[in-house]
Amino acid sequence: MYRLYRTPQYLALLASLVLTLLCTTAQAEDGYRMWLRYDTIADNTLKQQYRAQLQQLVATDQSPTLAAARAELTRGLNGLLGQSIKPSKAAQGAGNLIIGTPDSSANIAALKLGDRLNAVGPEGFIITRAKVAGQRATVIAANSDAGVLYGAFHLLRLMQTQSDIAHIDVQSAPSVQHRVVNHWDNLNRIVERGYAGLSLWEWGNLPEYQNNPRYIDYARINASLGINGTVINNVNADARILSDAFLAKAAALAEVFRPYGIKLYLSVKFNSPMLLDDFDTADPLDPKVQKWWRERVKKVYQYIPDFGGFLVKANSEGQPGPQDFGRNHADGANMLADALAPYNGLVFWRAFVYAPEQGDRFREAYDEFKPLDGKFRDNVIVQIKNGPIDFQPREPFSPLFGALQKTNIALEVQVSQEYFGFSNHLAYQGPLFEEALDADTYAQGAGSTIGKILAGNVFDYKHTGMAAVINPGTDRNWTGHTFVQSSWYAFGRLAWDVGLSSAAIADEWARMTFNNKDDVLAPVTDIMAISREAGVNYRMPLGLTHLYAQGHHYGPAPWHDTSGRPDWTAYYYHQADKDGIGYDRTKTGSHAIEQYYPHWATQFAKPETTPEALLLWFHHLPWSYKMDSGRSLWQELVHKYDTGVNQVREMQTQWQELKGKIDPERFSQVEAQLKVQLRDAIYWRDACVSYFASVSGLALPKGSSAPAHPLEYYKNQEKIRYVPDPWYPFPSAH
Amino acid sequence: MYRLYRTPQYLALLASLVLTLLCTTAQAEDGYRMWLRYDTIADNTLKQQYRAQLQQLVATDQSPTLAAARAELTRGLNGLLGQSIKPSKAAQGAGNLIIGTPDSSANIAALKLGDRLNAVGPEGFIITRAKVAGQRATVIAANSDAGVLYGAFHLLRLMQTQSDIAHIDVQSAPSVQHRVVNHWDNLNRIVERGYAGLSLWEWGNLPEYQNNPRYIDYARINASLGINGTVINNVNADARILSDAFLAKAAALAEVFRPYGIKLYLSVKFNSPMLLDDFDTADPLDPKVQKWWRERVKKVYQYIPDFGGFLVKANSEGQPGPQDFGRNHADGANMLADALAPYNGLVFWRAFVYAPEQGDRFREAYDEFKPLDGKFRDNVIVQIKNGPIDFQPREPFSPLFGALQKTNIALEVQVSQEYFGFSNHLAYQGPLFEEALDADTYAQGAGSTIGKILAGNVFDYKHTGMAAVINPGTDRNWTGHTFVQSSWYAFGRLAWDVGLSSAAIADEWARMTFNNKDDVLAPVTDIMAISREAGVNYRMPLGLTHLYAQGHHYGPAPWHDTSGRPDWTAYYYHQADKDGIGYDRTKTGSHAIEQYYPHWATQFAKPETTPEALLLWFHHLPWSYKMDSGRSLWQELVHKYDTGVNQVREMQTQWQELKGKIDPERFSQVEAQLKVQLRDAIYWRDACVSYFASVSGLALPKGSSAPAHPLEYYKNQEKIRYVPDPWYPFPSAH
Repeated sequence: MYRLYRTPQYLALLASLVLTLLCTTAQAEDGYRMWLRYDTIADNTLKQQYRAQLQQLVATDQSPTLAAARAELTRGLNGLLGQSIKPSKAAQGAGNLIIGTPDSSANIAALKLGDRLNAVGPEGFIITRAKVAGQRATVIAANSDAGVLYGAFHLLRLMQTQSDIAHIDVQSAPSVQHRVVNHWDNLNRIVERGYAGLSLWEWGNLPEYQNNPRYIDYARINASLGINGTVINNVNADARILSDAFLAKAAALAEVFRPYGIKLYLSVKFNSPMLLDDFDTADPLDPKVQKWWRERVKKVYQYIPDFGGFLVKANSEGQPGPQDFGRNHADGANMLADALAPYNGLVFWRAFVYAPEQGDRFREAYDEFKPLDGKFRDNVIVQIKNGPIDFQPREPFSPLFGALQKTNIALEVQVSQEYFGFSNHLAYQGPLFEEALDADTYAQGAGSTIGKILAGNVFDYKHTGMAAVINPGTDRNWTGHTFVQSSWYAFGRLAWDVGLSSAAIADEWARMTFNNKDDVLAPVTDIMAISREAGVNYRMPLGLTHLYAQGHHYGPAPWHDTSGRPDWTAYYYHQADKDGIGYDRTKTGSHAIEQYYPHWATQFAKPETTPEALLLWFHHLPWSYKMDSGRSLWQELVHKYDTGVNQVREMQTQWQELKGKIDPERFSQVEAQLKVQLRDAIYWRDACVSYFASVSGLALPKGSSAPAHPLEYYKNQEKIRYVPDPWYPFPSAH
Repeated sequence: MYRLYRTPQYLALLASLVLTLLCTTAQAEDGYRMWLRYDTIADNTLKQQYRAQLQQLVATDQSPTLAAARAELTRGLNGLLGQSIKPSKAAQGAGNLIIGTPDSSANIAALKLGDRLNAVGPEGFIITRAKVAGQRATVIAANSDAGVLYGAFHLLRLMQTQSDIAHIDVQSAPSVQHRVVNHWDNLNRIVERGYAGLSLWEWGNLPEYQNNPRYIDYARINASLGINGTVINNVNADARILSDAFLAKAAALAEVFRPYGIKLYLSVKFNSPMLLDDFDTADPLDPKVQKWWRERVKKVYQYIPDFGGFLVKANSEGQPGPQDFGRNHADGANMLADALAPYNGLVFWRAFVYAPEQGDRFREAYDEFKPLDGKFRDNVIVQIKNGPIDFQPREPFSPLFGALQKTNIALEVQVSQEYFGFSNHLAYQGPLFEEALDADTYAQGAGSTIGKILAGNVFDYKHTGMAAVINPGTDRNWTGHTFVQSSWYAFGRLAWDVGLSSAAIADEWARMTFNNKDDVLAPVTDIMAISREAGVNYRMPLGLTHLYAQGHHYGPAPWHDTSGRPDWTAYYYHQADKDGIGYDRTKTGSHAIEQYYPHWATQFAKPETTPEALLLWFHHLPWSYKMDSGRSLWQELVHKYDTGVNQVREMQTQWQELKGKIDPERFSQVEAQLKVQLRDAIYWRDACVSYFASVSGLALPKGSSAPAHPLEYYKNQEKIRYVPDPWYPFPSAH
């Protein structure tokens, strides 16, 4: 017994006991670390294998990016292995991990990886085993320092998910060039559609307080996914972002992000010359306006030498744009592109446009942009939302994909859950992103998926991109709901590799975020798998869309039929009356289906060949319309609402499986959030079913329970119900 | 050498090394723990003494409050001693720490502390050494469980500040009955004048998510100071706080706070019956209005059985009040008091009132409330700000103190730095609070200080209170600036003991918040000692007041002379023109000085007998007026502005002393914030000096440097300068 007290094992045990006791008290698992947790590997056999293979880290701090890679591996391996990895300048002895480029590492140069490195391009990496200094070593090699950093994160991910790395041989390059996150952060730090606290950017003490640890951790989180750009301010832009005062602040952030391979972009307001310098026009063809932008851009690059470029929301929802001056989107985008071109800057120009006077909002982006295909400069990227309307729980893919063949494009998706219950609801967006990427446009025949288009395999684009509106804020876990982290994760992984499945990504994320145990992974991934469909079902099944209350997008208001503009009512979208429901987009209606290639135009033309999940997007049908299930449309609709509520109950049941198997803090928070979600799901179901029953005049199908309250109750609640969103003006009656 | 490896010392060293390494990586010092850090005591001799004295904790979990006391001592002692304290149900052996009331602890009952316990009242405590079960033990005894909890925190504080507790014998009772914090948190979670993130109260997921760890830590922070009440919502109240939905949410918070001895209060809107239930009046003498309030109050107590009461801002800055219905403040307060009385609830009725039509805003609170003295119910407390205007950097004390002799009163001070540079500036408010408490009203002759009045030693009040507007939000360190924590701390300590000095409190706080080393304490407390005066000097010295831009209260706008109401301009306060500066409140002016007892009315009547720090509060004087220093008023004014800027430089120099001596994270953050503060102090000084030079037509005194820009620059900046406050609408031009 006494012997035990002085064995290294005992010492280690003691140390770890004390550590657990004190650290646990000091810091519970609050989600701050996201998927970069690096807790010591529980499986002892595997840990010993890893320890033997990775004893020494051969790396230099020759550049800030290489230093970041070395720091991350040190932090990650020290955590995962539960022991310190030794730093070294050159390989010696056994168990070397060697990282670098042929330029920065003599060991790697000596491996002569030329062909393989050529194949992974400027940002890709190789992780392999090779003989170095007479011993087998693990090698992370790339053509650029950023590639090394991405490889470092990849190795850590493999270890976090307990993969076998004994014979590792990975060769990886990103599918999409520009992998960009978009923040809808206002300069007053209130985040539009954020729901996770205030903006991360503390403008009030920038540029002075650059050492905010969250800035670096934010960069690490993104870099771990290969994200290489961030637009830090809202597309509903404030012109002052281009003032010298704010450029100095933004430059301080850009400096923090730079070592992590992340370029900073800014959203700009199209009429900035008018707002900042009292110009009487912002006409993009006016030479003095062009000069103003050239000079401002020059100033931007003085502050931020590797500035990424501008993101622009123009002539959309009240934002100014070139059309205000009789010009088109290409005129506007090109003017900015010309100012940015000398510095290799880009313009992301959003295709999210719609005007109150037009007929079918669905049609508008295509109708405005398709005629301009080929008219944009080659440093302009048209950024297109996945669907034709606006991040709804389910949309058909936007017909602009495949239509713009001579114009660089980017796909825009949303991680923040504007239409998915904010940070109160669990709704893993991976399946939605996957659905979008896998959508086949048939632009060049079968197999012309959006994913392949973005990967540059269909058209000859100079640039492609994927952008996600993300919501991190000052909430301790960044995203408000732990599972919103998973959608951020999924976006990054898919932008790197458009071919990944959302299920595989969920498994990865769950392992890194919770742990590798089967009885944890199964419930977590099951919940994730159904969560998006649950959200569709209890809100707007069968292709219904936009039944939200105006403005806040939290609760239901299918009865909403008057507003400043028709496309801001719910009635506009569902068109329900005594005889039927749905929006006719065939040739008897708006004929929006003509925007698709023939394969889909034909399928969408008839209800029988339209996928039921999209049915009411394209057809106005009688309540008695017979569904595949044999139920009437009315019965099926109520059935779907009931299914959605039951799916939330199922998610609750699954979550309870995790009690005691994951940390109590996150368990408890998600448990409570699922209660809120069930409360809200029932509310959605009851309100919508009440309303559609009142419109159709039909009785509830047998077995479907009556709503808790009469319809009037839900209508009255709309004005007083609490909306958890600081950005949204709390109903102002009081 | 080998021997060393198996000594307990080595084991401990190893454990602590590993701990430091891993915990440090995992969690830097981010300020979250406030002053409840409980890091292991560095002084080994002292630690050994403490360890010997405190080996075993004799306590029960008989009530939630006793459980909280036991949990806090366990957490605190485990941390401070670096070893686990043993739990026990009864004293045995050496080194017992015994806590409880005579009811809950047989050991304590046996000590027969009757007389001493009677002396400390319902909330006080005794900490002493006594023989129990044959051995000397340390005892925390009280009449109530809350008293035990306060004693537990006090013992921990003594140990955190490395006091000798070998012969401890403390007897302590609070000076003031109701020690309350006020949150100006709106229901949309934006905090008015908060500057530290969003509201802590996550209304969107309440009552479901009650286990938010911040709620408990919030309660611990307050309980550690003896704070026994919290008003959780803004005095600019939203009527919906009294809706059932919000009462259920508030009740969930009250449940968390209850074990910590903290009662929950709500701010209510006076015309709630009109807003919530469409009444056509809120006349406090109308029986149906009275009935409405009785029924609502009954409902409140169904949700929250120990509800504290209401805080009301009425007929002030646009808030509704009894005067809207032809009634007075007493009518309004008494109506609410009658509804609350059956449940022992209180009404805190604010005396912060002023109307645009009146002459001197200074006079108004006194003029409205003095005539009502004696007219309020005995469960009404009139809550009076320390000064007659509004939390200005320096104000004379409000003449209402001492004037209300038959009406319960509370003092209201502000921790959040609305007028002190928000969470960007370092401005320890302890000296301001001390100045207020030590102010001698002369109500019953010399020695009738506000502190004594609040302690109930001057008038025979049934209730007295102290309230602080605090700003904790979702910022990781709760208050935005680490040093704002110190003002919260000072408020709590002074409410417990109005006789403490702000310097002693600063020393305590610095020891607990940083460490006990002399070379840390000296710079920290030196900085704290000058910080408030620095803030006065670079903003509005010599009794100038309210030179702020309208609305945001961050930057200067002494030129501001037009507004919706005169008392919302800066000119109203300084009255500067070519001939002089200052507000004449003598009998040749508004004669506000008549509101003071003769001692001060006489002194304030003449400039020569008015303290120079308050000079321009009471006198309009020529620029050439001769000051004590021999300088003219104009020269002195500029000198003070220069002094303020230099004091910030001095604070920076002192802070640099701490480099490497405290944790890098907080060092770096405060270092950056001091840079912002210097930038702002220079801006204040330059803007004000420019303006007053332009008004007086006088040249800058020799040796005083010219402002960086012409006056017009500062005037133009007012509209575009960034104001770090999400609550304040960012100037709307863009």
